[in-house]
Amino acid sequence: MNPVERIRLRAREGDLEEERTDSLAVEEPLEIRVQTDDGAAAITFVTTMRTPGHDEELTAGLLFAEGVLEARADIVALERPADPRVDADLRANVVVATLSPTAFARAGGLVRGTVMGSACGVCGRTSIERVLPEGARAVVTDVVLDAGVLFGLPGSLRRSQSVFAQTGGLHAAGLFTPAGELRAIREDIGRHNATDKLVGAHWLAGEVPLRDQVLLVSGRAGFEIVQKACSAGIPFVASVSAPSSLAVELAEAAGITLIGFLRDRRFNLYAHAGRVARIDGPRPA
Amino acid sequence: MNPVERIRLRAREGDLEEERTDSLAVEEPLEIRVQTDDGAAAITFVTTMRTPGHDEELTAGLLFAEGVLEARADIVALERPADPRVDADLRANVVVATLSPTAFARAGGLVRGTVMGSACGVCGRTSIERVLPEGARAVVTDVVLDAGVLFGLPGSLRRSQSVFAQTGGLHAAGLFTPAGELRAIREDIGRHNATDKLVGAHWLAGEVPLRDQVLLVSGRAGFEIVQKACSAGIPFVASVSAPSSLAVELAEAAGITLIGFLRDRRFNLYAHAGRVARIDGPRPA
Repeated sequence: MNPVERIRLRAREGDLEEERTDSLAVEEPLEIRVQTDDGAAAITFVTTMRTPGHDEELTAGLLFAEGVLEARADIVALERPADPRVDADLRANVVVATLSPTAFARAGGLVRGTVMGSACGVCGRTSIERVLPEGARAVVTDVVLDAGVLFGLPGSLRRSQSVFAQTGGLHAAGLFTPAGELRAIREDIGRHNATDKLVGAHWLAGEVPLRDQVLLVSGRAGFEIVQKACSAGIPFVASVSAPSSLAVELAEAAGITLIGFLRDRRFNLYAHAGRVARIDGPRPA
Repeated sequence: MNPVERIRLRAREGDLEEERTDSLAVEEPLEIRVQTDDGAAAITFVTTMRTPGHDEELTAGLLFAEGVLEARADIVALERPADPRVDADLRANVVVATLSPTAFARAGGLVRGTVMGSACGVCGRTSIERVLPEGARAVVTDVVLDAGVLFGLPGSLRRSQSVFAQTGGLHAAGLFTPAGELRAIREDIGRHNATDKLVGAHWLAGEVPLRDQVLLVSGRAGFEIVQKACSAGIPFVASVSAPSSLAVELAEAAGITLIGFLRDRRFNLYAHAGRVARIDGPRPA
């Protein structure tokens, strides 16, 4: 399926009206089903709205972010439904993940609400402890990023997006080396999905933890974006917009350098600022 | 709790660095618990990230949007946890909704995944049918909006936001009369939460369906925003940014006039365009 759809609309400007053709981001539901290897048990893990494309990576990234996947062997297969009674256009919106018995059990626990439930209430601190249990190792790196490299990342991300996405039609998440090379980019109408697709692609390739890398997201950096970076072992998270209070707290606790408002040769450092050197780099193109 | 938090950060511009104080949107988890009137059964319905404030309205709006609440009597009480063993700062992040037996059963069905699950896959069409079952009445109105009224709404919404929120720190959802008067505004780090708070406030006041009203959201109009408007009976949905493909399809099916890119005396009409008159109104302040 195409991530962009052409539609007809009526454009008004002042008192003038004209009919026009324009592009919209496609939003369609994706049902993620999980099953055991022997097919004896199967459940719908979640149904989420997303822009079609890289659905298997989204599935892996989302299951990984939720803690269902630990080892690579936890995913036996990622397929479209085999059932011939299922329509072709419905099959395009379903991914079936065949899981190891332990991963399937974790998925079941989440669906039944027996894992996330808390008898003592929730707060920012408990949210952070859930991501980063006491004694868990924070993200570590010896890399010191050059400020000049950071200045160049938004332009690099934008240049590898489609024209439509560049105009804000789709969110993007990009993964960069410490030298500023773009390793991969994923797009989606949802910022969280774009990040899950990106991490999922690398998880499926056996490349997680993503040591020493930089994650750049096109929108805001909320708690969940930093949480996904933390799970994937990414030590640098940058966004072109604002972080939230809890994103800053988690980055501080997790050992993640959090960069916000990265645009026009400026940025703000919210946590672990010492890992960005004050050396002036080349001006972005 | 304050929706905004002051923090210290290091601002870089070129090769200059200075320490600065800035405001961030507060993001904290909210646990929504539901229980029966006799207290015999209680479950966590969902834990969601939100900006603190109007938590009871968010709870009502979210339970309404999910189809748990039908009649006003479905909510017996909305309270903080009574258990004295729960810390004060945790209590601030929990709302307990006491529900009628039928509403509690619907909530339980959703949590157990026995309601949303579909054996035949999902697609845009099935998503729309879930919101608008065949034979269900579409949103109807005799109101024809004046284009000049529409032009003035974003400015009106902005002027009633805090300075911080105006700079994009928080999303806003506003409800307007057909004459362009602002009835209510709610803010949150999440666009969906802002809409749930807004609808929840009116639902608790017994004012849903919100016939003839206009919903304006500060971000993009995706499927779920139009879905929430549809449930609340709101015939006009406007956003300052783009809708998604599925938002347009649902608006078309539901009888909702969908307005996008509303800014600078311009807007696009994506569905039910006939309900916006081409009469030139006053210029926005």
